[in-house]
Amino acid sequence: MELSEIYQPVQEDLGRVKETLKSISRVDFPWLSEQLSYVVAASGKSIRPALTLLAGKFYNYNLDLLVPMAVSVELMHTATLVHDDAIDKSEVRRGQSTINSLWGDEVAILLGDFLFAKAGMFVADTKNPYVIKLFSQTLATISSGEINQFRSAYQTAQTREQYLKRIAAKTASLFCLSTESGAVLSGAPDFAVKAMRNYSLNMGIAFQVVDDLLDFVGTEEMLGKPVGSDLEQGTLTLPAMLLLERYPENNPVKDIFEKKDMASIPRAIEMVRGSTIIEECYRLAEDYSTRAKDSLKVLPENGSRVSLTELADYVIRRKV
Amino acid sequence: MELSEIYQPVQEDLGRVKETLKSISRVDFPWLSEQLSYVVAASGKSIRPALTLLAGKFYNYNLDLLVPMAVSVELMHTATLVHDDAIDKSEVRRGQSTINSLWGDEVAILLGDFLFAKAGMFVADTKNPYVIKLFSQTLATISSGEINQFRSAYQTAQTREQYLKRIAAKTASLFCLSTESGAVLSGAPDFAVKAMRNYSLNMGIAFQVVDDLLDFVGTEEMLGKPVGSDLEQGTLTLPAMLLLERYPENNPVKDIFEKKDMASIPRAIEMVRGSTIIEECYRLAEDYSTRAKDSLKVLPENGSRVSLTELADYVIRRKV
Repeated sequence: MELSEIYQPVQEDLGRVKETLKSISRVDFPWLSEQLSYVVAASGKSIRPALTLLAGKFYNYNLDLLVPMAVSVELMHTATLVHDDAIDKSEVRRGQSTINSLWGDEVAILLGDFLFAKAGMFVADTKNPYVIKLFSQTLATISSGEINQFRSAYQTAQTREQYLKRIAAKTASLFCLSTESGAVLSGAPDFAVKAMRNYSLNMGIAFQVVDDLLDFVGTEEMLGKPVGSDLEQGTLTLPAMLLLERYPENNPVKDIFEKKDMASIPRAIEMVRGSTIIEECYRLAEDYSTRAKDSLKVLPENGSRVSLTELADYVIRRKV
Repeated sequence: MELSEIYQPVQEDLGRVKETLKSISRVDFPWLSEQLSYVVAASGKSIRPALTLLAGKFYNYNLDLLVPMAVSVELMHTATLVHDDAIDKSEVRRGQSTINSLWGDEVAILLGDFLFAKAGMFVADTKNPYVIKLFSQTLATISSGEINQFRSAYQTAQTREQYLKRIAAKTASLFCLSTESGAVLSGAPDFAVKAMRNYSLNMGIAFQVVDDLLDFVGTEEMLGKPVGSDLEQGTLTLPAMLLLERYPENNPVKDIFEKKDMASIPRAIEMVRGSTIIEECYRLAEDYSTRAKDSLKVLPENGSRVSLTELADYVIRRKV
């Protein structure tokens, strides 16, 4: 299934979310308006707002609450990307120049803050105290996770548990906010909210494991950014971790991290590509994807459940 | 009156606010904990949390709501300072090294985000939809105001209206959140909420006009940062604006802004110090301070009203 097919139960309403996102660029400041149009135009797969809408389909599907919530999660995601690119000094994202490369780190910091604020305004419109609190908790989890990642950069002695905890914080937590809020705002009973949380925690980890693998096996054209970015940033992801385990001596990852020998990046990529590390990463991602799908079984059977199941498969086989 | 005397009606409760702020540094991450203790230890005059508590004293003074709100406004203020210092590449604030100078811009960006998130968690605890929405609107106002300031840096052709709009956005808006939230959370009637808003809008402008003047007439010891920082950042404040008006030809501000001749900063400072610009700035600040005090007249007479009146005088005569 293609994404457009998976999104079918909420496709029209996702259009409303995108319209609202665009409306944010109509603000008082001409300068800001330009930047905002730019950020909104570069929108990606819209997985997070789609999750909110799909998760809202099992009980009382109330678009007056679900649309602002979906807008909010996408804005929070965009704000974190704008800040991450400034931190990583990334030049390109989704095939487009980043805000920091176009207008400098200063504007990137402030624009990210503005987008967090806008996200906060939309979640406030739900008037739901549980969801509002979860929104801020999620941002705290993401930012403290990113601080952790930054502090452990270029360190080769990291455990798989640390890796999983890190990607749960930086990626899966926002997937959890997306589905859990959709469930709560549609009046889902506790067991269903919990099922949604389990689904997106596992699906989010699967998503990020594949993301980290694509940084090795993808192409710059597919990724919309250079291959090997994680190695360059000193972020130890699962493929690099497995490469270190398999070749403890004379390892390019060691040269990159310990000697800052960036010329070793192509060799690290080649070694991963020519190994069974790819299969091992996919096996782990599939385990999490299966757990995600299993979590859905307690929910009422409907088209949205089919879509969420398909989405857990899609995140594994995706190439972008 | 000294600040401690002005804060007297809420002094004890302000202690609870500071205790809660300190508790934020007890978190999962040892690294983060170190940074947070550092930020909390460098706390300043606590004007914003004091405003929330004082504004809450006219009707139902409910500390279960007012303490988290006061914590929230102080955290938002701290988060904006952490980001501002990274943007301005400031080395020192309140006599202490800044987060960006100690741990780099990357940590400053992420720690600022974490503090915004924590601020959001505390405001969520009030469960008051109006206050929660106002919180995010205020952050949007501050960050878009800062973007405006950044984009107009080193421009000499700015009007007094633009200046006042800018300081209302970057400073007075958070003062407004502080008092308005205190009023709303204590069940104040609409006229009293409006009075509080008028008070803090005008008091906030007076505060910032004096702040901008102190950058010229203060000492490094008093300010806890170098004199003339605004000129160095290319921020056109009222004293510099008046200097440009009075000496359109051969003006050191022009040399600094247009030729980036930073050696002219001492001459600009000397010219302001030797002129009636000081009086003119104080006159404007006093106008706003008077308007602030006038706004209070509709409120019930009590110790808190006396304190708020005194605070509007204090922000004019303060030297730090």
